[in-house]
Amino acid sequence: MATLLEITDPADPRLADYRDLRDVQLRKALETTHGLFLAEGEKVVRRAVEGGFTPRSFLMAPRWLDGLGDVLETTDAPCYVLSEALAEEVTGFHVHRGALASLERRPLPSLDSVLEGARSVLVLEDVVDHTNVGAIFRSGAALGFDAVLLAPRCADPLYRRSIKVAMGAVFTVPYTRFEGWYDALPSLSALGFTTVALTLAPDSTPIEEAVAGLDKVALVLGSEGHGLSERWERSADRRAIIPMQDGVDSLNVGAAAAVACYVTAHRAVVA
Amino acid sequence: MATLLEITDPADPRLADYRDLRDVQLRKALETTHGLFLAEGEKVVRRAVEGGFTPRSFLMAPRWLDGLGDVLETTDAPCYVLSEALAEEVTGFHVHRGALASLERRPLPSLDSVLEGARSVLVLEDVVDHTNVGAIFRSGAALGFDAVLLAPRCADPLYRRSIKVAMGAVFTVPYTRFEGWYDALPSLSALGFTTVALTLAPDSTPIEEAVAGLDKVALVLGSEGHGLSERWERSADRRAIIPMQDGVDSLNVGAAAAVACYVTAHRAVVA
Repeated sequence: MATLLEITDPADPRLADYRDLRDVQLRKALETTHGLFLAEGEKVVRRAVEGGFTPRSFLMAPRWLDGLGDVLETTDAPCYVLSEALAEEVTGFHVHRGALASLERRPLPSLDSVLEGARSVLVLEDVVDHTNVGAIFRSGAALGFDAVLLAPRCADPLYRRSIKVAMGAVFTVPYTRFEGWYDALPSLSALGFTTVALTLAPDSTPIEEAVAGLDKVALVLGSEGHGLSERWERSADRRAIIPMQDGVDSLNVGAAAAVACYVTAHRAVVA
Repeated sequence: MATLLEITDPADPRLADYRDLRDVQLRKALETTHGLFLAEGEKVVRRAVEGGFTPRSFLMAPRWLDGLGDVLETTDAPCYVLSEALAEEVTGFHVHRGALASLERRPLPSLDSVLEGARSVLVLEDVVDHTNVGAIFRSGAALGFDAVLLAPRCADPLYRRSIKVAMGAVFTVPYTRFEGWYDALPSLSALGFTTVALTLAPDSTPIEEAVAGLDKVALVLGSEGHGLSERWERSADRRAIIPMQDGVDSLNVGAAAAVACYVTAHRAVVA
């Protein structure tokens, strides 16, 4: 059972994990250095613990204790209990979902272990917005994708905002990060995946045709602003497009991912 | 040609349209009362003017004048020129896309005029998040939807954030708002549309089957938190679901809209 500790001083040094949550740069540095991440809201905190992540501590207002009672029973981590006003002072924002947890990051798994048994995977190059990363994990989980692979510069799926938008799908969908960028896609091809890059390139084919009949597929998405790098676009096995109306530039990356995941999940299978 | 007016005092009363842009409640009241909306960024300002909206004024730092020179030539509205630091003081945020315009709202068109010639339309009940409204307009525009209809309480497509996320699609896709809520869907059915509600209801059929063979389709989406009201869910002609993995609650409304628009745009046609 977690130890309940009442907090009355917002400067209490035991709250270090929870400071200044709106300062993205500071949080990135702090969370990487200390190997932690934050989960926000009863549902997400529960999913993080059920997903096997070890809690360092919890922070919540008294009224959230009951709802998370069964979760708190599974751990010896401290649970800091404080008023909502005090919580706001520490974190720098109104914690309207009431419960926060700080959890240990785990070493990223190997590519081989993430891909074991996988038939449909998502590959994200430099998606930089945490909301988009979270939304893509959620769509992938809902539409039956088995894993997500990230380029070295893709935004962190365990950043608070990614987790929240993903509704915890970052805890259930296996993922890892490529160590190198240049040969990432050829290395996937060598493992038996057909890499299909989503792009507006002139030699792209409609996504439905591009994935038809494929066994193992890796769907490759680029950044919000500029799409895929030329290297990734050209080193993919196929280039695919979501057919669009004349005069419209593009879909946003979250919408494009959802459509491409749906089409890929429903791809025609060749016997 | 717009009149260029240099501004040195952030309290200048001529800047009233541009104050406190981060205060959503204040902006909603101000924009409704004065019948205006704000466009942000060179591309979006250009699309608003090209979309036929009348500018009340422009506000920009000197370095944006050239890029929008051709747009400024088409109007007699004042263009307030000021430093980026001063612009930030007036608006309350860092105007990183540099150019703002305040434009006149137009009266909403009639349902009949919006639906004239339309074959695929989106219907949004109480989507409350401006980002989601914008993303849905953008997906609808890209995937060939002809119009968008809004329930009385759906968020405003001309709010700054909606416009930005839509990349201006709110200027090109015709839309209007239902005057009444209760009979909105039956009134569409009476006009020859099959209303297809996206829902997790037990009697829903996969979206691909639900839209197959339909001529005029109205795809109906509910709010982020609770989905459709019971009245709308039951008064739709059909209930449809996007098939999902076991154990996953749902897609976010933007992702669901993108998938449903894609499937509907590619529906099988019965001769």
